[in-house]
Parts: sequence; structure tokens; C-alpha cells
Amino acid sequence: MSTAGIIIIGNEILSGKVADVNSAFLCEELYKLGVEVMRISTIPDDIEQIAEEVRKMSRAYDYVFTSGGVGPTHDDCTLEGVAQALGRGLTVRREITALLERYLGGPLNEGQLKMARVPEGSELLGNASIVFPVTAVENVYLFPGIPKLLRLGFEDIRERFRGSVPFALRRLYLNCYESEVAEELRRVQDAFPDVRIGSYPRTGEEAHRVLLTFESRDSERVALAFDALRQSLPVRFVIGSEPLGEVS
Amino acid sequence: MSTAGIIIIGNEILSGKVADVNSAFLCEELYKLGVEVMRISTIPDDIEQIAEEVRKMSRAYDYVFTSGGVGPTHDDCTLEGVAQALGRGLTVRREITALLERYLGGPLNEGQLKMARVPEGSELLGNASIVFPVTAVENVYLFPGIPKLLRLGFEDIRERFRGSVPFALRRLYLNCYESEVAEELRRVQDAFPDVRIGSYPRTGEEAHRVLLTFESRDSERVALAFDALRQSLPVRFVIGSEPLGEVS
Repeated sequence: MSTAGIIIIGNEILSGKVADVNSAFLCEELYKLGVEVMRISTIPDDIEQIAEEVRKMSRAYDYVFTSGGVGPTHDDCTLEGVAQALGRGLTVRREITALLERYLGGPLNEGQLKMARVPEGSELLGNASIVFPVTAVENVYLFPGIPKLLRLGFEDIRERFRGSVPFALRRLYLNCYESEVAEELRRVQDAFPDVRIGSYPRTGEEAHRVLLTFESRDSERVALAFDALRQSLPVRFVIGSEPLGEVS
Repeated sequence: MSTAGIIIIGNEILSGKVADVNSAFLCEELYKLGVEVMRISTIPDDIEQIAEEVRKMSRAYDYVFTSGGVGPTHDDCTLEGVAQALGRGLTVRREITALLERYLGGPLNEGQLKMARVPEGSELLGNASIVFPVTAVENVYLFPGIPKLLRLGFEDIRERFRGSVPFALRRLYLNCYESEVAEELRRVQDAFPDVRIGSYPRTGEEAHRVLLTFESRDSERVALAFDALRQSLPVRFVIGSEPLGEVS
């Protein structure tokens, strides 16, 4: 199973000016592709901190995704941070300067040129005729922080992350307190350590009080764990369920 | 100036089932209180990882806030993780069992009792007659992951985090590309290293193309940096601005 780490870069997130929506998008998409996100780190626009986080995650996980810090202004330093993390220099890429010149209709200033200065050996991915390319170097994928651009870029290249076996999932909706089923849950979890069982108390206006999820790459084990739990609960606790399905 | 780290705990966030809204809430509130959030780490329901992250952040920052993992089910292990991080045991607190017994109308089962087993020496904060108390131990504050409960708990205790000097802030709205002002921005930033200058390209339907923010605890420096930048830009770039104010 492949794994991933996500690095959200930007002072504006940490100071509460902008809410990060990119990590939730990436987590949901990667999960559907069968990639397990192990950690999200949200850090400032700081070369040293970016370099340290990229270095750690790049060694620990199969993929690293960064969001933010690739624009033209003084605080954008993700490209430098990633280059430093991987012991590479920066080099201006003609594909990017051409794209920017066409878009802006003239020669580039220093800030604009900075956006084209990427780590040596980077691949430029995606359909660059309509979207700014996604820069990839080793196992690190750099996305802009603007949600719309991140989504367009990810959608262009998502298939390269698809794992061979998707997650199987089954949901069970209950009308009791989470604490009333905690002991049965623990027993079933102990009997099925290979099935991930999640328990989510209602947070809004949902009809159920608790949602239970059963997940594994082995759909048979999901079915068995689901049945074991349902049979251990009083019938009055159960509101409904969904048939076994693939996460996609 | 005081600093903080935020730890968002939950497999459901990393697998994209639930979008984290708690970190954005805490970042915004803490910023208004004059507390600088240095990092957000989103990690799984795993005792070792929780312990390691709490240990690091507890040493590095003035405050640590955790969200999630304090419920009654098998995957909730934040209380154990925090206790382990700080080299403390766990102890059942009568204040919490009494609250749960009153709420549930009967004796507690093992899962419910787990919610009352907190790190030794914890303070129980907030108005516990209406809200589940916030557990605090050393400089670590433990909140439930349910957004409504986290908000109620935080609002109860927010004043204890208020710093002595708030941030001063001024905003400038521009109608040009970010890259067209990048050089002037860098010049002003170099002249005012103590003022934090942020540049945010439009992400949605806003009338401006770029929002610039100028921030510092010294309001005079904010005013000077703002003026220096505005005077260096062509008049046609500027759509509007807001008067100098305190972040609150």
C-alpha cells in the first residue's frame, strides 16, 4: 500500500486569514486512489522549515504533496525549500517562462522569473497549455495554494497515484450513544485487527447518532467484521447500513 | 509574544471522511488574542505518534492544543498519548464521572469511564455544568474533535491566552497581478523586516486581484510600511484600503 504526506505552506493559514481546504481535498482524493495519508504538516513560509519537513516526509512516505509558496512574491519560498531538502540547485525552465510570457503578454520581471526557477531535474507535469504545470522532483509534487489551481493540477495527474487494490468500505448508522457500543467495538476490533473500524458521533443535524465505518483492502474481512458487530448490538440501536462498496 | 502548536488527531481526517475545521477556528481565535500559531500537525489515532508530537510541541511552544481522540471508543487514545508524552499516569476524575452519570442517567461502562481517566495533575477547565470540561496538563489543552464542543470549550477559557499587545493590521486592495508588485514588496519587506507583509492573490469572486496585509505589534511600523509601499505603486493599481486597526 502506498503512503503519502501533505505539507501545507503559508503564514496566512497559521494566522487564520485563510482556511486550508487543500488538505481535505487531497486526503479524500488520495484515499479514493488507495493511497494512505500518514500526516499533514502545516508550516510557515520559511525555507529551513520547508526543507526539513520535505526531507523527513520524502524519506518516510512514497509521495509528498506540497501546497502553497510557489508564487512570485517575497514570501514564496517553497521551490527553494524543496531544492534544499533534496540537495539540488534551482534552474530556470523555458517551458514555464514561455507560459508566463504568453499569459502576461510581455517579458518577465524578477518575481515572475522566480516562478520558473525550479529544482534541478524536476519534471513538469499536467496539461500545461491550460494549467500551470505541476512541478515534481523525486517523490515530491508541488502544487499552488490557490484551491482551484491545485484541483486542476491534481486532476491532470491523479492516475499516476492509483494503487492496485482499492479500499472496501461498509457503513453502519446507529441511534445510540457512542459510549453504549464502545465495548462491542473494541471486541470486534480485537478480533479483526486488519479491519479499520471508525466511530463518528453526529456533529450536525444528521438523523443518526453514530456512524461506524469498516474498511480494509480485503472486502471479505470487512463483511465479516460488519456482521460480527451488527449481531452483537441490540436491534433497536441500528438505523440502517449501506451495502459493501469500494471507496471511489 | 506567546506561541502555540496545534495537533489535530484522527484517522477520519487523514482518510478524507471528515474535513478538519477546528484548526482554522483555533488559528483565527489565537491570532486575535495575540498568540502566534507556529505549526499544525495532523496525525492518526496512535498513542506513540501522539506522545511524540505532544512532547516536541510542549517543549517548543508556550501552548499546545489538541483536537480529537477523547471519546469512549477503541480508537480514542489522546489522553493516554498526552500522559505518556509528559511522563504521567492516568487517573479517574470524579468531576467527569459525575457529569457523565448525570448526562447518561446511569452507571458508566468501560468506554465511558475511559473519558474520565485523564493525565495525573490535570486541571479541568471551563464551565463544566453545561460543557464537558477542557482538560489541561502543563501547557497542553485537550479539546474534543466535535467542532461545536471545541468552540464552546475554547470560548470558556480563551481569555487565559490573551497576550499583552495585540497585532496591528492594515490591508491594501490591488487591481493588478501579484507578480507586478513583487519587486516593490520585496524592497519594502527588506526595509521593514519587523513588519509581516502578506500577499494573497484572489481565489474566488472578489473585486480585487491581490490583497496585501501589513502586520506587526508596533502599529507605527505598520503605518510606515503601508505608506512606503503604496507610494511606490502606480495609482491605477490601488482599489482601496482599510484604516489601521487592531486584529480582534
